[in-house]
Amino acid sequence: MSLLFKHLRIHQIFGANTDVGKTLLTSALVRASAALGNDVYYLKPVSTGPMSDADDEYVKRFAGKHKSRVRTECLFRFGEPVSPQLAAQLAQREESKVYIPSDKEFVTAVASHVRKCATHTARPSHMYVETAGGVHSPTLSGTTQLDSYRPLFLPTILIGDSRLGGISSTISSYESLVLRGYIVDAILLFRDEYYRNWEYLSSYFAEKGVQVHAVDPPPAKHTDNNTNIQLTEQFYWKIVPSNNQGTIFDTVRHLDICHTQRLEELDSMPRRTLDTIWWPFVQHGHVKTEKDVTVIDSASGDVFSLYNGHNTESSTPSLLEPQFDGSASWWTQAVGHAHPALTMAAAQAAGRYGHVMFPEATHLPALKLAERLVKFGPGRGWASRAFFSDDGSTGMEVALKMALRAFAVREQGGLKSGIGMEKRRGLGVLGLKGSYHGDTIGAMDACEEGVYTSEWHEAKGFWLDPPTISVRNGQTVISVPPSISAESEVETQSLGWTYDITERFKTPLAAVYRQHIESTLRKLRNSERTLAALVLEPIVMGAGGMIFVDPLFQRILIDVVRSSNAFPGTLSTTPGEWSGLPVIFDEVFVGLYRLGFESIIPLLGVFPDISVNAKILTGGLVPMAVTLASDSIFKAFYSEKKVDALLHGHSYTAYPVGCEVANEALNVIEKLSKSGEWEEAKARWASPQETKLQSNGVWSFWDPDFVSELSKLPCVGEVMTLGTVLSIKIADDTAGYQSHSAQKLLDVIKSSENTEDVSPIPGGSPFGINYRTLGNVAYFMLSLNTAPEIVKAVENRIWRTLSS
Amino acid sequence: MSLLFKHLRIHQIFGANTDVGKTLLTSALVRASAALGNDVYYLKPVSTGPMSDADDEYVKRFAGKHKSRVRTECLFRFGEPVSPQLAAQLAQREESKVYIPSDKEFVTAVASHVRKCATHTARPSHMYVETAGGVHSPTLSGTTQLDSYRPLFLPTILIGDSRLGGISSTISSYESLVLRGYIVDAILLFRDEYYRNWEYLSSYFAEKGVQVHAVDPPPAKHTDNNTNIQLTEQFYWKIVPSNNQGTIFDTVRHLDICHTQRLEELDSMPRRTLDTIWWPFVQHGHVKTEKDVTVIDSASGDVFSLYNGHNTESSTPSLLEPQFDGSASWWTQAVGHAHPALTMAAAQAAGRYGHVMFPEATHLPALKLAERLVKFGPGRGWASRAFFSDDGSTGMEVALKMALRAFAVREQGGLKSGIGMEKRRGLGVLGLKGSYHGDTIGAMDACEEGVYTSEWHEAKGFWLDPPTISVRNGQTVISVPPSISAESEVETQSLGWTYDITERFKTPLAAVYRQHIESTLRKLRNSERTLAALVLEPIVMGAGGMIFVDPLFQRILIDVVRSSNAFPGTLSTTPGEWSGLPVIFDEVFVGLYRLGFESIIPLLGVFPDISVNAKILTGGLVPMAVTLASDSIFKAFYSEKKVDALLHGHSYTAYPVGCEVANEALNVIEKLSKSGEWEEAKARWASPQETKLQSNGVWSFWDPDFVSELSKLPCVGEVMTLGTVLSIKIADDTAGYQSHSAQKLLDVIKSSENTEDVSPIPGGSPFGINYRTLGNVAYFMLSLNTAPEIVKAVENRIWRTLSS
Repeated sequence: MSLLFKHLRIHQIFGANTDVGKTLLTSALVRASAALGNDVYYLKPVSTGPMSDADDEYVKRFAGKHKSRVRTECLFRFGEPVSPQLAAQLAQREESKVYIPSDKEFVTAVASHVRKCATHTARPSHMYVETAGGVHSPTLSGTTQLDSYRPLFLPTILIGDSRLGGISSTISSYESLVLRGYIVDAILLFRDEYYRNWEYLSSYFAEKGVQVHAVDPPPAKHTDNNTNIQLTEQFYWKIVPSNNQGTIFDTVRHLDICHTQRLEELDSMPRRTLDTIWWPFVQHGHVKTEKDVTVIDSASGDVFSLYNGHNTESSTPSLLEPQFDGSASWWTQAVGHAHPALTMAAAQAAGRYGHVMFPEATHLPALKLAERLVKFGPGRGWASRAFFSDDGSTGMEVALKMALRAFAVREQGGLKSGIGMEKRRGLGVLGLKGSYHGDTIGAMDACEEGVYTSEWHEAKGFWLDPPTISVRNGQTVISVPPSISAESEVETQSLGWTYDITERFKTPLAAVYRQHIESTLRKLRNSERTLAALVLEPIVMGAGGMIFVDPLFQRILIDVVRSSNAFPGTLSTTPGEWSGLPVIFDEVFVGLYRLGFESIIPLLGVFPDISVNAKILTGGLVPMAVTLASDSIFKAFYSEKKVDALLHGHSYTAYPVGCEVANEALNVIEKLSKSGEWEEAKARWASPQETKLQSNGVWSFWDPDFVSELSKLPCVGEVMTLGTVLSIKIADDTAGYQSHSAQKLLDVIKSSENTEDVSPIPGGSPFGINYRTLGNVAYFMLSLNTAPEIVKAVENRIWRTLSS
Repeated sequence: MSLLFKHLRIHQIFGANTDVGKTLLTSALVRASAALGNDVYYLKPVSTGPMSDADDEYVKRFAGKHKSRVRTECLFRFGEPVSPQLAAQLAQREESKVYIPSDKEFVTAVASHVRKCATHTARPSHMYVETAGGVHSPTLSGTTQLDSYRPLFLPTILIGDSRLGGISSTISSYESLVLRGYIVDAILLFRDEYYRNWEYLSSYFAEKGVQVHAVDPPPAKHTDNNTNIQLTEQFYWKIVPSNNQGTIFDTVRHLDICHTQRLEELDSMPRRTLDTIWWPFVQHGHVKTEKDVTVIDSASGDVFSLYNGHNTESSTPSLLEPQFDGSASWWTQAVGHAHPALTMAAAQAAGRYGHVMFPEATHLPALKLAERLVKFGPGRGWASRAFFSDDGSTGMEVALKMALRAFAVREQGGLKSGIGMEKRRGLGVLGLKGSYHGDTIGAMDACEEGVYTSEWHEAKGFWLDPPTISVRNGQTVISVPPSISAESEVETQSLGWTYDITERFKTPLAAVYRQHIESTLRKLRNSERTLAALVLEPIVMGAGGMIFVDPLFQRILIDVVRSSNAFPGTLSTTPGEWSGLPVIFDEVFVGLYRLGFESIIPLLGVFPDISVNAKILTGGLVPMAVTLASDSIFKAFYSEKKVDALLHGHSYTAYPVGCEVANEALNVIEKLSKSGEWEEAKARWASPQETKLQSNGVWSFWDPDFVSELSKLPCVGEVMTLGTVLSIKIADDTAGYQSHSAQKLLDVIKSSENTEDVSPIPGGSPFGINYRTLGNVAYFMLSLNTAPEIVKAVENRIWRTLSS
C-alpha cells in the first residue's frame, strides 16, 4: 500500500552508493524547503552509526535559519524500534535485546509514522525519507532496501555518485529502481569538476525524461570539529543561499511540481478513462461517474494501491489506499503483483532476445517451458507436444482445430488434403451446460447460446446438464438435475469423500450417471452434427458461474465416450491413442494450483488427449497459453503436404518474455509447494480421523469452519471452495448473469473500513476488497502465497458484510 | 552477432565498480588457467591509464611460472586503434590525432581480434576480455559498456565490490547485466573480513543460481615499487598456489563447466525441439533433421545469433553466426531486437503493477496508450475509443463483433437484447479475395475458404477480386482482373503517381471500378447473407501473398458502400456516423510505419469506422492488439442492460507491460521519424522533377534502382515495395501457398557466405538472411532503423542469389 497526501509531498532518498553525500544533499533539500516557508519532516527509518554521528541530528543542526520549521526523527536505531506507536507492539515479541522486525513490521512502522505525520497538527508539507547506504543495502531483516520499501511506493530521489566510476553506479542504481517500478523524480549529485559525471549523466537521463541536478561539492573535512562545523555551515549558505536561488532550490521546486502533476494526473484519470477506454465485459451505461472508476496507481503482493480522490466517503487521509485484489485480477494472479523474480525474468528475456520468430526455430525459454509442461507438468504421462498461443481463448481454438482434424482423419479417412469440405463442416462437440472456453467466436461455438455470445455465434454441439457439488447449511451436497434423477439432492459425508472417485464408483449414483450418459449419447447418434470431440472444464466451470461439477460425472462421461459402445467407429485399442472422441481439458482456469493441485488430472484419474493452460502459467504478468497434445493427435497433421500442417500461429507465438516469465513463475510456485507453507491449511481439511491430509485429498486456503458457517447464513444459498477459490451463491435469486444481487449485497466491501486497527496488509492501512461477481455468484480468489493473516482478515470482512 | 568457439572458452569481465580488483582477479584467473595447462589470451579492448600501469603489462608480469602460455593485448590505448586489422581501415577516416571509433567499429575491432585469436596457430583455449571501470562506464564513443559490447554477447564474470556499500553496487551491476540479457557465469570478489559482503551475496545469488566465489584480499600497497612487486607476487602464489587448489582454481573449473554445458545445451536443442515442440504453420513432415532447426541463441539489432554446430557446411569457425532477420520475425520488428528502451519499459511496468485487472479500472500505461492512439495516432480525426486485446486475430474478432452489432442495431432496430437470434446469424461481410485477418475461427470466417481454413470454417460473406500494383520489367503496372476489365494490364508513369488517388480519380479506370463495384453489389442484394460490414486490409494484403491492392479500387469501394445507392437501409447523413456498412481497416500488418507512413489513412483519403493495430504496436517485444472505434460504433453497445455490453475480454486485457512497451515503442519510432534518418531513402523515391519527396508521396527503404533491376531478372515475375517491405514474386509459378519455388530459389541465402570481407553487421562477420515465403512469393522486411549499409548488403545478397 502506498501513501500520498495532498498537502504533504513525500520523497524517499536512495543513494547510488555509500558515501555519495546522501545525508548532506538531503539536508540541503530540507533546509531549502524550510527556507521556502514549508514545515519539513526528515525521517531516517534506520540509523546504524553512533549517536553523535546520527543523520537526524546532523540534518537538524544544519537546517539553517528556519530550523524551527524542521523536525527530524529516526525510527530504528541500531535495530531497536523507537517509534512509540510500534515499540509496545513489537516489544511483546521481543526475545533478545536487539529486536529485528520483519519486512512487514518494518514497513508498517514506517507507514504508521508517515501517516501520523500527515495528520499531525503541525502538518508538515514536505517530507524526506532517507534510506541507508546504496539502493540494495540490506535492511534489518536482510531484504534489500528497494524490495523492503516497495509496498510504500514513495516517489524517489536518487543521489548520484560523482566519483570515479560513479557514472556506472548511478545508472545501475537507477535501473534497479526502475526494475521495481519506482518513480524517480530527480537525480542529484555533486558537481565534481575533475570527473564531470554530471555532464554525462545529464544527457544520458535527459533521453529518459529524468532531470539531473548538480550541486557544488562540500569542503574537505577539517580535523578540528568546530572548524568543520563552521565550514559546513558556510557551505550550506553557499548552496542554499538566502536569495532562495540555485540548484537546490530548483530541485525543491521541481519536486513540488512533480507532486502537483502526480495529483493532477491521478485526479484526471477517471474522466479521461471514461472518455477514451472501451472496457471489456462492462456496460458503459452503468459506469458514468468518476468515482465508479478504479484508478490503480500501483500494485504489490495481493494489493492494489487505489486513488480515492473522487470517493467523498473515503475514511483515510491518504489519497492512495490499499484494496485486496479479490478476483486475483481475473484469475491470473498466483504469487502476488510485481513479483521481483518475474520482473527479472521478463527483463532478461527481453534483453537477450526481444522477440524472435518461432516457426522452424527454437530458443531456450520456449524449449525449457515446453519440456517442463510436457514431461514434468500437466502433460506428464500423456502429452508429447506443446503448441504456444496468446491466451486461453486462442489456446482453445488451437485445441478444437486439433481435435476436429484428428477426428476427421480417423472417421473420414485421410488428412485434410483428402477430406471433403462439406463433411468436415458438420462436426460438433460434446460438452456440459455452463461451459465457457473464451471469447473468440470459434471457442464460443463450442458452447451453448448464451448472454455472452455474439451475432455470429452458432452452437456447434450438444451439452449435458451436469450434477454439481456445493456446501449448503454446513453440509456437502450433490445437486443432481432432474434430467438425470428424481432425487435432486444427495448429502455426502464430507468434501474429501466427494472427490474420492474410487470410493464413489461403488455408490449407486455411478450407475445412474452411466445410464443417463449412455442413453443420451444413443439419442444423439442421429443428430444434425457429428460429435467429434469431448470438451470439458474439469472440476470447475469458471465463467459459467463457478460451477463445481461432480467429478464422478465427468469421469464417467469420459469413460463412456472412450468405451466401445459410444463411438464404435472411432475406437482405438492402441495404448496412448485417443479413442471414441478426442478429449480436451480446458484447464485455463483450474490448472496450475488454482484448485490446490498442480494438475486436476489426479482428481479425475484419467488423461486428456489435448489440454490448455494459461492464466497462472505466466504468474499473472503477461498473456500466454499452451495447448498440449498427445502424439496420436499430433500425427493427424503429419504428412509431406504443407496444407496438412496445423496452419495456425500468432505473430508473437512463444515469445521469449512470456516463456521465461512462465518458467520463473513455475519455479516460484514449485518452491512454494515444497516450502511447507500450505501444510497448516491442508491439515485443517483433513478428515477428523486424519492428522494430515491424504496426498490426493482436496483442500482449500479458506478455513473449513468459515466456509461452513457462511453457508448457513440466510442470504447465502450455497458456498463452495477448493484451493484458492471461494464461491458464494446468493440465496433466492435465479436471474443468472444478468443479476445484480451479489454486486449489491457486497458493494460496501470495496472501500476500506474506518478503523484504528493495524491491518495485516504491509503498511497496516485499513483496506477494501476488489471482487467480481458472475450474476448472483460472488467469488474470491487468493494467490498461492497470500499471508494467512490476510486470508483471515478477508474472511472476517466477508463474514461481517454478509452476516449483517 | 556473438562469438562462441568449441576449443576457446571466452569470458568477459565486468566490474561492480571502479577499483574493485578487476585486473587483479582477472590476472589470477589467467594465471590459474595457464597453471592448469591452457594457452591463455588476455584482452583489454580499451586501456586509459599510463603505459607503465597498463593492465596487459600487469597481467603478463604476474602470469606466474607458465607465463609462456599467456599472451596479452590491448586494442585501443588512449583511444588510438592498435589492432593491425582495423587500424588501416579506420585511419582513412582519421581527421584528428585521436580517432574515436563508433560503436560498430569498436565492436567489430574486438570481434575481429577475437576471431583471429580463435583461428591463430597458437590456439589459446581460454580468453578473458576485461572491460574498464564499472558495468556502465562509457566506452570511447560514449555509449555505456554494457550496451556497447552487447552485440558480442560473451558470457560474463562480474567482479563484486567487497567494500562498504558493495552489496548494493554488486546487485545493481548484476541487474544491469540481466536487463541486457547477459549470461553471468560467476561473481568473484574479495573476502573482506570486516564487511563480509561475500556472505550476504553468496546466499542472495544462490537463489538465482549464480555462484559467488570469494578470494583473499591483496596486501596493502607498499611505497617501494620493488617491494610492492614482491608482495604482489607472493600474494599470487597464495591465491593461485602450486597445488592448483583453492577458490581461483574452483572458479576456473566452474567456468570450464559452464562453457561445456553451454555447448552441450546448444547442441541438444534441435533434437529436443523436434521431440517436444509443435510449431505454428510448419509441416513437421518437412523438418526432420537437426540442421533444419534454427537455434536462436540471442538476438540484437536486426540480427539473430544462430548456433551452426549441426551445419556441416558452415564456413565460420565460430559456432554462433549472425543471420539477418529478413521477415522482421513475422512482421513484428521495427526498432531492432532487444532494444534497451523497450526492456526498461517492460521492467518498469512489471515492477510497478505486474498485471492488474482492467474492467471498470484504469492505469497510466493503458490510459496513455489509448489516448495516444485515439487522439494522436491512427485514430486521429475519427476514433473515440480503444479496446485492448491480445493479438491481431483477437483484435479483428472484436472489430467484427463491433461491426455486426452496429449493423444489427440500425438495420434490425434495438440493441442485442431486442434482436432475434436467427436474423442476426445470417450476417456476412464484404471483402477482397486474398484477405487474411488472423487465425482464430471467427476472423477466418471473414475470409474465403482456403488452405489456411479449418474444419469449422464457414466463409461468411462475399469477396471481390481486386486490381493490384506491382513492378514488372522496371515498369509500375496495375493488373486488373478479367471480371473488371478486358484490359488486364495498365502501365503507369510511376509508383508515386499510382498512389496519388486525387490524380487517379480523373482517369477512366476510376469509372470502370465504380461501375464494377456498383453492379456487383446490386447482384449481391439477394444473396443468402445480409452484408453487414466492409472489411479491408488497406493497401497490402499480407498473409494472402503480399498483394498490393490498387488503392483507387479500395477507395471507390468504400465510397460506394457509404453512398446512397448501395445500402440505402442503413444510410446515415450525420457526420461521424457510419453509413451503409461499418468499415473495418485491418491495419495489423500495414499500420504504424510498416509501409513508411504512421497510418495508411492519408493514402486512401477516408477514415474507417473501426480499425485494428498490433505487431509493430508493441515494438516487436510482446503481444498486444488495439481495436479503435468511432463513437457511432460504441453507442451500439451502450444501454442500461449488462447483456448489451461488448462481452469480450481476455484475462490480460490491457496488461501494463504490453501497454508501457507500446508507449515506449511509439516514442522510439516517433523520434526516428523526426530524426531525418529516412530522408535519404525518401529522396531517392522523389520523382525526377522533385528534389524532395512530397509529404504524401510513397517511398521505400529499398533502393528504387535495385527494385527496378530485380524486376527485370528472368526468374522474377514481379516485385513490389513500400516502406520496409520488399516482395518478390517468382516467375512462372502459380501454385500459390503450396508452392516451394521461392523457398528453393533462395535457400542458399540463409547461410553466411565464405568471405574475407568485413560485413556491416556489428562484429563484421559474414551473415546469412532468414526469410519467409508465401508460396511463390518471397518477401524481405526491414526495421525502421536498419542501417543503410546493412540494407545495401541485403540487397546485394538478394541480387547475387537471384541473378546467378
